[in-house]
Amino acid sequence: MRINANYLRLEDSYLFSSIAKKVAAYQKEHPEREILRLGIGDVTLPLCDASVAAMASAVREMGTEQGFHGYGPEQGYGFLRMAIAQYYQSRGVLLTPDEIFVSDGAKSDLGNFPDILSLDNTVWIPDPVYPAYVDSNIMSGRKIQYLDANPENHFLPMPVRNRKMDIIYLCSPNNPTGAVYDREQLRQWVDYALANGAILLFDAAYEAFIREPDLPGSIYEIEGAKKCAVEFCSMSKTAGFTGTRCGYTVVPRELIYEGASLNALWLRRQTTKFNGVAYIVQRGAEAAFSPEGRRQCKRKIDYYMENARIISNDLDEMGIRYTGGRNSPYIWMTCPCGRSSWEYFDLLLNRAGIVGTPGSGFGANGEGFFRLSAFGKRENVEKAMERMKTRM
Amino acid sequence: MRINANYLRLEDSYLFSSIAKKVAAYQKEHPEREILRLGIGDVTLPLCDASVAAMASAVREMGTEQGFHGYGPEQGYGFLRMAIAQYYQSRGVLLTPDEIFVSDGAKSDLGNFPDILSLDNTVWIPDPVYPAYVDSNIMSGRKIQYLDANPENHFLPMPVRNRKMDIIYLCSPNNPTGAVYDREQLRQWVDYALANGAILLFDAAYEAFIREPDLPGSIYEIEGAKKCAVEFCSMSKTAGFTGTRCGYTVVPRELIYEGASLNALWLRRQTTKFNGVAYIVQRGAEAAFSPEGRRQCKRKIDYYMENARIISNDLDEMGIRYTGGRNSPYIWMTCPCGRSSWEYFDLLLNRAGIVGTPGSGFGANGEGFFRLSAFGKRENVEKAMERMKTRM
Repeated sequence: MRINANYLRLEDSYLFSSIAKKVAAYQKEHPEREILRLGIGDVTLPLCDASVAAMASAVREMGTEQGFHGYGPEQGYGFLRMAIAQYYQSRGVLLTPDEIFVSDGAKSDLGNFPDILSLDNTVWIPDPVYPAYVDSNIMSGRKIQYLDANPENHFLPMPVRNRKMDIIYLCSPNNPTGAVYDREQLRQWVDYALANGAILLFDAAYEAFIREPDLPGSIYEIEGAKKCAVEFCSMSKTAGFTGTRCGYTVVPRELIYEGASLNALWLRRQTTKFNGVAYIVQRGAEAAFSPEGRRQCKRKIDYYMENARIISNDLDEMGIRYTGGRNSPYIWMTCPCGRSSWEYFDLLLNRAGIVGTPGSGFGANGEGFFRLSAFGKRENVEKAMERMKTRM
Repeated sequence: MRINANYLRLEDSYLFSSIAKKVAAYQKEHPEREILRLGIGDVTLPLCDASVAAMASAVREMGTEQGFHGYGPEQGYGFLRMAIAQYYQSRGVLLTPDEIFVSDGAKSDLGNFPDILSLDNTVWIPDPVYPAYVDSNIMSGRKIQYLDANPENHFLPMPVRNRKMDIIYLCSPNNPTGAVYDREQLRQWVDYALANGAILLFDAAYEAFIREPDLPGSIYEIEGAKKCAVEFCSMSKTAGFTGTRCGYTVVPRELIYEGASLNALWLRRQTTKFNGVAYIVQRGAEAAFSPEGRRQCKRKIDYYMENARIISNDLDEMGIRYTGGRNSPYIWMTCPCGRSSWEYFDLLLNRAGIVGTPGSGFGANGEGFFRLSAFGKRENVEKAMERMKTRM
């Protein structure tokens, strides 16, 4: 029996585990010092009341003969897919529930979706980027090319006419850079994909953080996108579901390649290799899309965006350049004094006890940059920025 | 962009959807008749009280700042992996928690595990078989060979010395045939795998239904198995988690192929392409492994096994031959009068309003056989067997 040798080409250590090791070593050396975490993008506020109430009720149901739910549809219950379709409708995008696939989160689907696409396709991935796009495609042995994102293009790479791209990952609002494509830029991507038979894998996990109403939160706000784009969404950040696990992927029925419906192929993939999301969790997710749930989630997002405002203002005050923070929970700053990402990581940890994420962990173009996240508790964010202003 | 053409080689309709269509058509024609389902293997009893209480408490935690849980380890929380390790220990198998990977169920892991194995391997799959093994390997384009299971070998295929097998799926207690390997038979499989560098993918989803203490419930009860076998387990049937979604896969640290640790490769796969199971669900699963939870789950399993006894006794009375039912919730019967599986399906539905599963849906060797499941409610099982005795 032979192993998949592609796995041996993966880089040894994962970004966040390297950070965890450095932080543990620092904490061991300085047990008395308080560490403030602006690193990994995990949320800190509890689930909204509507979701908690709905899940409590679903748990009670599962303990009764009448209310018990066994196997559900792998692609998600109709009640949740309908709620998600209504959420899209409220933003001007019409989808039918059978175009929506409920999953345990965007990361799984972003990594697994290429299962239904040929191994011969060339995959284009922005650099810097969320590491899972790259790793999952290394595992399958696909040829990977990078789309340079840098200060010149405001970290928003655009299509180049003479390049033949098959599969293109886009993420907007972007993780890690916080940059957001505008309507005209996304239109160019859609036009490119339609003209070249390419597919866009659009990661919209952070759409709920967009504040400027003119910026598109869904690729389907662009005409023609249903013929060339899959959209991956997450409830992790929008409804605090990082530990509750629920996301959804939109595969329009109009997506036809080589005569095959990607919607049908993905349904087949999911019913064969995925078990679906717990009934209890889907009830919690449905509640987060109710009018009351949306109001409650919005208040939590507002809280995080106020953190982002505080961080941005203080960086402005310190004269540090950055992107993001206005329509995204991430602030992507230039490391001061030309420092490398890991140099700045060590300095920030040792001088100020602050943990951030080195930009180089997201790709070669991330070198010299640093990611701060707005998901902390207010007092910690304020304390961290105060330390940054006084100790750095 | 090209699609994965392997998907076009999948058979068009899935077994259970064909059944659902036939049942819907029958119900439409005879809206007054009561249908009794002994078909798809879904449980009917509610979750045990221990799991319900633990999940209710976890839901409350998730609504508070102090109790909120964000991202957890993709491979499962330590508390659950420890509980599973203790469950194994109680059955004489020593595992460390880092050899256990919590998942959303066995089907996902059975389909995804080959991700870390080369596409060049030949996969050997019993026939008849749970369809997901076959479909997931067709999707990846692996060469599939079948291991004949038939009345001659009591539906328990054994290794053949001169065959070169790389990846071998085994399922015991078997779905669909209910047959169970004994210790000596599994020892032969382990010896074959060790001698030939093969890997056994051992599906133990039904281990809790074994009643005869001499029959092995885990492949690791066989010496040497940790060097050549992965074990896939499910809480779907043992704790009623079909709608709650939790399973676990054991990848021993001693599993080394071509110098690579499969434990390390699988950890990398799961952290990249899987999001982990909801905290709430993991607390429910942990409770099912507590002494009280195990007692409660055992009572439910006893209930189903009493159904199996009733079905078996009545088949004996009717002079119908079958395997299973004694250490398995499935009864695999020979279709009377030499009927084909679908002929018998139609006859049983039309004459008695009973839905079972045609054996041919599980593979060519299933033709002429029929699967009954013991997961129904007692009164329905009794009513169904009464109808079978009087109308068939």
